[in-house]
Amino acid sequence: MTVLVESSGLPADAYSAKCPTRLVLDHIAGKWTVLVIDALMDGTMRHTELRRRIEGVSQKMLTQTLRTLETDGFLTRTVHPVVPPRVDYDLTELGRSLGTPIAALREWAEVHINEVERARASAEPRTDQ
Amino acid sequence: MTVLVESSGLPADAYSAKCPTRLVLDHIAGKWTVLVIDALMDGTMRHTELRRRIEGVSQKMLTQTLRTLETDGFLTRTVHPVVPPRVDYDLTELGRSLGTPIAALREWAEVHINEVERARASAEPRTDQ
Repeated sequence: MTVLVESSGLPADAYSAKCPTRLVLDHIAGKWTVLVIDALMDGTMRHTELRRRIEGVSQKMLTQTLRTLETDGFLTRTVHPVVPPRVDYDLTELGRSLGTPIAALREWAEVHINEVERARASAEPRTDQ
Repeated sequence: MTVLVESSGLPADAYSAKCPTRLVLDHIAGKWTVLVIDALMDGTMRHTELRRRIEGVSQKMLTQTLRTLETDGFLTRTVHPVVPPRVDYDLTELGRSLGTPIAALREWAEVHINEVERARASAEPRTDQ
């Protein structure tokens, strides 16, 4: 299935350096994006809940990831006027559609981890170019 | 499906900062990895062919991506003793199994590019935290 990019009139092609698809791929293919989208597939989460769920993500990196995903239309950010303010994150329909390939990638990593670790353990140190 | 990580004896969990799955996710979720694995699904390619196929990737970035993928057991690198040397890259069985979720991610980006561009165009500039 080939989609025409409305802004350029050219076919969408992630292999083309100038296609905006490349930028989208850069945003959706990333460790933190994968974990944020995957976590939100279970439903609404607050910033603090996401930080707890995704161990090891820094405050700054999580904020930056959430902001990019919001700008791209993958999630909504709802600020509740309470003290202290409560901020909820939810996937949009677009974000939810991305959840399926994202979950497949996370699951692949979890299912094949031992094969990767064995390959890494047996890899010869490389001295050439 | 839960897999036990042989090196730790713990269940594979990409959300856990200490699980080696996290590192694998970091390697497989990346713009260049996605394009290299996806390109090699069509068969053997040389370094120069990959560079032509994946527009805009630098020599250094491609070399680094290929090396990580080789160490992780996703591809083989065959040096042919000819002048000038010819180096072929092929997916291993493990790399080929990763091809399916990877292709789904690239296809998602190509199919949904217009929705993302529209979301981005209508995103309000943010001034708050």
